[in-house]
Amino acid sequence: MSEIAFQNNYPDELSHCYGCGRLNPDGLQLKSYWDGDETVARFRPRASHMAIPGYVYGGLLASLIDCHSTGSASAAAGRARPDEAPFRFVTASLHVDYLRPTPIDAELEIRGVIKELKEKKVVVSATVSAGGQVCAKGEVVAVRMPENMLR
Amino acid sequence: MSEIAFQNNYPDELSHCYGCGRLNPDGLQLKSYWDGDETVARFRPRASHMAIPGYVYGGLLASLIDCHSTGSASAAAGRARPDEAPFRFVTASLHVDYLRPTPIDAELEIRGVIKELKEKKVVVSATVSAGGQVCAKGEVVAVRMPENMLR
Repeated sequence: MSEIAFQNNYPDELSHCYGCGRLNPDGLQLKSYWDGDETVARFRPRASHMAIPGYVYGGLLASLIDCHSTGSASAAAGRARPDEAPFRFVTASLHVDYLRPTPIDAELEIRGVIKELKEKKVVVSATVSAGGQVCAKGEVVAVRMPENMLR
Repeated sequence: MSEIAFQNNYPDELSHCYGCGRLNPDGLQLKSYWDGDETVARFRPRASHMAIPGYVYGGLLASLIDCHSTGSASAAAGRARPDEAPFRFVTASLHVDYLRPTPIDAELEIRGVIKELKEKKVVVSATVSAGGQVCAKGEVVAVRMPENMLR
């Protein structure tokens, strides 16, 4: 695994995301890393993140897939063009299939695979597993953040 | 608009969802209602729910579409068979298209349309708007919750 989380390479002004910003004290602070050609993040749900007792709510899984995938897109773009500044990607579309109930009392592993890599668009497929069993799978179309989004 | 939120018809043991459970004090407590044949919910993001300063993070929009749609599925099933007990639906799949950045300092309106209604499967399309402009649209395939999910 790489040593520095993708999200820790974001500049301060892009590090406030509820899902993955290191400067958002209320947020999830997801951290994603390279693991060979795949990307990986681990996350332990809070007790409040339930859908029904014992299981994680779907919105959390969507958030984890979303932020892990945009982070993976940023890292893949950076690996392809290491001499340029870090790139920030945002989500154009997100799809999640919920395959089985996801236990809330387990560490979740989110894994990403880069399916398509273009200069301004990266497609990432992702899974969320608990105890080695895939509970949800998803796909994110990430696009390079327009510079005029920063106020 | 109907007077009682769909989620307030869920029995206590199914009212802990982070997105819409009335018994989850840390959660979003989304409330959805009939508005004619459409369903509607309104939600004001917290300051921490940002993606980058000024805009809502994608996972929140996914959560709102998810919980509003499963609630809408439950309500539609109940409207079709009013003499039976309330039905609880869970998400089989979720798709969200992010059409434009969603401002964080606005009340969001989530609207749902029932696209398909079967006994065990309901398909709901949804939009999230701010200031009358659609910022995200999505589709949820909701399935009747298996009884063995309740521990």
